[in-house]
Amino acid sequence: MNYIQQPQAIERKSFEIISEIIAETRPEYRFDSPLHEAIIKRVIHTTADFEWLDILWFAPNALTRLSESLSRPCTLYTDTTMALSGINKNLLATFGGECRCYISDPRVVREAKAQGITRSMAAVDIAAKEDGDKVFVFGNAPTALFRLLEHKELEVGGVIGVPVGFVGAAESKEALSQSGLPGIAALGRKGGSNVAAAIVNAILYHLQAGQ
Amino acid sequence: MNYIQQPQAIERKSFEIISEIIAETRPEYRFDSPLHEAIIKRVIHTTADFEWLDILWFAPNALTRLSESLSRPCTLYTDTTMALSGINKNLLATFGGECRCYISDPRVVREAKAQGITRSMAAVDIAAKEDGDKVFVFGNAPTALFRLLEHKELEVGGVIGVPVGFVGAAESKEALSQSGLPGIAALGRKGGSNVAAAIVNAILYHLQAGQ
Repeated sequence: MNYIQQPQAIERKSFEIISEIIAETRPEYRFDSPLHEAIIKRVIHTTADFEWLDILWFAPNALTRLSESLSRPCTLYTDTTMALSGINKNLLATFGGECRCYISDPRVVREAKAQGITRSMAAVDIAAKEDGDKVFVFGNAPTALFRLLEHKELEVGGVIGVPVGFVGAAESKEALSQSGLPGIAALGRKGGSNVAAAIVNAILYHLQAGQ
Repeated sequence: MNYIQQPQAIERKSFEIISEIIAETRPEYRFDSPLHEAIIKRVIHTTADFEWLDILWFAPNALTRLSESLSRPCTLYTDTTMALSGINKNLLATFGGECRCYISDPRVVREAKAQGITRSMAAVDIAAKEDGDKVFVFGNAPTALFRLLEHKELEVGGVIGVPVGFVGAAESKEALSQSGLPGIAALGRKGGSNVAAAIVNAILYHLQAGQ
């Protein structure tokens, strides 16, 4: 069989096709900035779903704040190991950052049971107690995002809030968009760990290219 | 804030909503079997995308063969660590199965460089040499699926072939659907590691419920 076998060539060609499809189907569509464009196109690359042109909401200060946080030592807290897996941790480390997921941490398991809350919520509580610049990356658990918004005392470097689902997901993301936090949110039901990781990676690649 | 905090309640309610939406929007839609229904609904649960009602293709023998393989000791080979992360490995282990991803294996890195192929392809080559019942789970790499189809000598317990993307993805899944292998394929561009894991988990939960 004949098929392209060079990963870089595959990715370059994919982004060309995505750009062509947007130009053909949505000629009036305008991106706000190169980073805005990079994020939306990478999410489309990850999902093959062009609805992402319309459902990704950015707080006015989100891209500036997230770029600042990711370009220096910070900790990314993910709600799932899938999101953690998808993030380019080697590239993140070149900026001094690291990535943690506490969902299976024994403290989280214990606190969730003791308080009758989800493990995703208990994981946010533990992250909130840690020092350093924090970026939260949620692709799955609306309860994680709701819990984060309850920690009003917390200084947050940024929030990627794209939980997918049918119960609480849309409401949690709406709440993020009203919170004043430097967030990126997927409006409606769509989202996912893959989308969350794609957004982080798009920012990292953009920072790398700008160095 | 008021929000449901019990994971089981959230999941149950989510599937109720999915069923209601299907009944309302697609009253003529019929599932082939309870397992077919379980898989499609779990993929919708994972993506919030009802297009999955129409784009998931099943080989005639796929559900029987995959159920047989997953209900006894077998090895699942994933193309990404994201898919590996998303699979319920504890439940898989109760049936004697395990899950491997060779994408960062030193042998794979070496062979990919030596042969000028993708690491996903080299990972399939290494998996093909191993003993035991094999199920391949691809959510990302069309080249993995193409390579698997080149291993015509190989006995395969099942293939979940849902690479997402714009270059080769649709073609690779079309090739799977023509191969005679016991496969599940996402027709067109959509797919993903999250979808691949959701399909595996739906089968595992179905087997667990039937015990």
